[in-house]
Amino acid sequence: MTTKNPGADLAAFAAGLKFEDIPTDVVRKTEDLLVDWFGSAVAGHGSRPVETIAKFAQTMGPAEGPSEVIINGRRTTPYFAALANAAASHVAEQDDVHNGSVFHPATVVFSPAVAVAQALGASGKQLIAASVAGYEVGIRVGEFLGRSHYKVFHTTGTAGTLAAAAAVGNLLGLDAQQMRHAFGSAGTQSAGLWEFLRTAADSKQLHTAHAAAAGLASAYLAKDGFTGADRIFDGPQGLAAGMSSDSDPAKLVDGLGTRWATAETSFKYHASCRHTHPAADALAQVMRECKLKPADIARVVTHVHQGAIDVLGPVVDPKTVHQSKFNMGTVLALVAKYAHAGLPEFDDHFRDADVMALRDKVEMVLDPEVDGAYPRRWIGKVTVTTTDGRTLHGRVDEPKGDPGNTLSRDEITAKALQLAAFSKGADEARMRAAVDRLWNVAQWPKVAALL
Amino acid sequence: MTTKNPGADLAAFAAGLKFEDIPTDVVRKTEDLLVDWFGSAVAGHGSRPVETIAKFAQTMGPAEGPSEVIINGRRTTPYFAALANAAASHVAEQDDVHNGSVFHPATVVFSPAVAVAQALGASGKQLIAASVAGYEVGIRVGEFLGRSHYKVFHTTGTAGTLAAAAAVGNLLGLDAQQMRHAFGSAGTQSAGLWEFLRTAADSKQLHTAHAAAAGLASAYLAKDGFTGADRIFDGPQGLAAGMSSDSDPAKLVDGLGTRWATAETSFKYHASCRHTHPAADALAQVMRECKLKPADIARVVTHVHQGAIDVLGPVVDPKTVHQSKFNMGTVLALVAKYAHAGLPEFDDHFRDADVMALRDKVEMVLDPEVDGAYPRRWIGKVTVTTTDGRTLHGRVDEPKGDPGNTLSRDEITAKALQLAAFSKGADEARMRAAVDRLWNVAQWPKVAALL
Repeated sequence: MTTKNPGADLAAFAAGLKFEDIPTDVVRKTEDLLVDWFGSAVAGHGSRPVETIAKFAQTMGPAEGPSEVIINGRRTTPYFAALANAAASHVAEQDDVHNGSVFHPATVVFSPAVAVAQALGASGKQLIAASVAGYEVGIRVGEFLGRSHYKVFHTTGTAGTLAAAAAVGNLLGLDAQQMRHAFGSAGTQSAGLWEFLRTAADSKQLHTAHAAAAGLASAYLAKDGFTGADRIFDGPQGLAAGMSSDSDPAKLVDGLGTRWATAETSFKYHASCRHTHPAADALAQVMRECKLKPADIARVVTHVHQGAIDVLGPVVDPKTVHQSKFNMGTVLALVAKYAHAGLPEFDDHFRDADVMALRDKVEMVLDPEVDGAYPRRWIGKVTVTTTDGRTLHGRVDEPKGDPGNTLSRDEITAKALQLAAFSKGADEARMRAAVDRLWNVAQWPKVAALL
Repeated sequence: MTTKNPGADLAAFAAGLKFEDIPTDVVRKTEDLLVDWFGSAVAGHGSRPVETIAKFAQTMGPAEGPSEVIINGRRTTPYFAALANAAASHVAEQDDVHNGSVFHPATVVFSPAVAVAQALGASGKQLIAASVAGYEVGIRVGEFLGRSHYKVFHTTGTAGTLAAAAAVGNLLGLDAQQMRHAFGSAGTQSAGLWEFLRTAADSKQLHTAHAAAAGLASAYLAKDGFTGADRIFDGPQGLAAGMSSDSDPAKLVDGLGTRWATAETSFKYHASCRHTHPAADALAQVMRECKLKPADIARVVTHVHQGAIDVLGPVVDPKTVHQSKFNMGTVLALVAKYAHAGLPEFDDHFRDADVMALRDKVEMVLDPEVDGAYPRRWIGKVTVTTTDGRTLHGRVDEPKGDPGNTLSRDEITAKALQLAAFSKGADEARMRAAVDRLWNVAQWPKVAALL
């Protein structure tokens, strides 16, 4: 698509997208992503930063309303439900990720979309169409903002306002011009800095909450005639001018209507920052194939892309469970010992003496091949030196959860049940029933409470 | 003050500031600023973008609560009152401005501070101390972010989250560490791009609403233990890293406790972007002293700083009243004809044929002296060429409203009454009574509804 105003074309696409336009395999994938998100939202139950945001929502918002706060079953307005559910669904670091944009779509798309669908009494098909609109927009905005943006900004927070506005705007029936205004309002509220990670602060939950709520507000305001910048993406004082040095407007409309970026989204298998997953899977391969034990390891070199170094590099001695998910050494040590770095492994073992000892044997080095393929492909490469002097190599081209190495519906269901069991956000019977219902979302005449 | 972490020192100052610490003249000035802000808030009544934001607050927020929405007298929670009042108090372009930071403090400080003071039953003295904390912080953050930031970002929106967090955090009694966390949460939500101005969009009201609400939320969250980045200002992935190329951390603590930046704040005399005021006053001087009529003017050259060209330059043929306030030609044409560019002049005459004809005779040129003094001093210089061939020069070193050329309390009261009369936000008797009460705010045992 060639265009004079790619942002306007993206808005027109988001406004006009209908369920019937979406290929069946993309619909099925969206259902997968929705169930996976739901598990992550339930996983937020009991998490301190999430509960704090939910308490704020309760203090400032109404005590009743059409929309569900998933971690506690309360009802409120869609604004506060979106805020609380977006905070909840990103904290376990188990929600999905789109490789090319380095963007976590589910938390900032489904949280507002479900809350608004409940408020409007929208159908399951409408929810799916709106969610795909959110994914397609958010992913393209992330790709547009580029790698320079991600060095400082948490793209899920920044592009997230646009993704949320697209999803909610689609549900509200915005026309193309209104959607353009919604994008203007959403983009001028884009925010989220990586600085918090350095001291293990709670901001990641605030970023997703903020993006979901600000994007939702932008769509509602646009429905009511509130206007936004015409060229919020590529204007001389727009998003890219302020927050990127390698933006590419063509990415905003890349394959619009033919390339379904939603279907490119990866599930997370390990409960850590996605930047650790390729190396984690490559190490697991070496451990498995060479029948190594953790004590056999003298040193692990992970060959990574620059983005991994930018995000993970500052985290040297993680003090909290959440921070440890951004420490390459901790993740690899857990994988070496338990074959999987899931929620219980982090919670119970991230400060174990043997895990910390192994952690400190792991280093990251920039790898030209891996960096060249990134962010399109996330290749995992490790070199393991053993205590008896061997040098072993591991490599994965698609870490577990990527589209070519995806999770089955049984695995997604199992993951959601594990997340609920871990957080105690719902007992097994209730969670299983909710997940079973949710697999049929496309048949729902109205989106009701999920739990 | 020398320090290793200026942001932490600023947080400690904001947390610790008490009424007794503030010099009397600064308290008096803060009362002036509060009354001036109140007039601007009432002026938002009936404005479409403001009413749209207020309607959103009403849709999503509770229908009752301790805090006052000034444009319609409704009550709600402090979050939504702050949101609506901040939207309201910036739209008439009559709210105050701090020259050195190019930051409008009142709208993002008093809106959340008054709403929270009403919710807590805080005293007038507590409200004043909290407001001064907000001013001192917001102004220093604006100065820290520098001129490069202002080229793309609307500093009132970005620094505004910090100002609001400081004011609300002071009212909530945050300790120094909690305030640091509040700053981290506020800074990671900083947002607001100038792009909207190019198409006369409504974002300026959204920026102040967003800043007030996000800053308020940050303070409440911090009170409840929610953490933020330790070095949100000057960290390698903090505000300056992402959004400035000429930041100066020393400005964050410049004269903290001895230099009262609050008292440096200017009132607006004309109802337009402050960048137009120096030239407007210089032209008014020429008109007055040379007894010119508008028809005598063949050409006006305004000698300005670069910031004026950045913000006003894109606005060539304003289509809305609000946009016309960012067009140097319109402002100067109104001043030439009416001696004052107030709300009625803009609303009734910005598209008059003679105003538009005179508008197009005005140009801006960068002036080294003016640019060198900016932003510390906003010098106004114009060269007028008359139809009979004369070349006349006007110059003001302190435009009307600056600290050395300030408004008296009678002028502030009169301005507030005019704003209320113009917007019909309150009838004269009610507004006069409210303003009379507000002058005594320092004696109030509890901050009650203002109107």
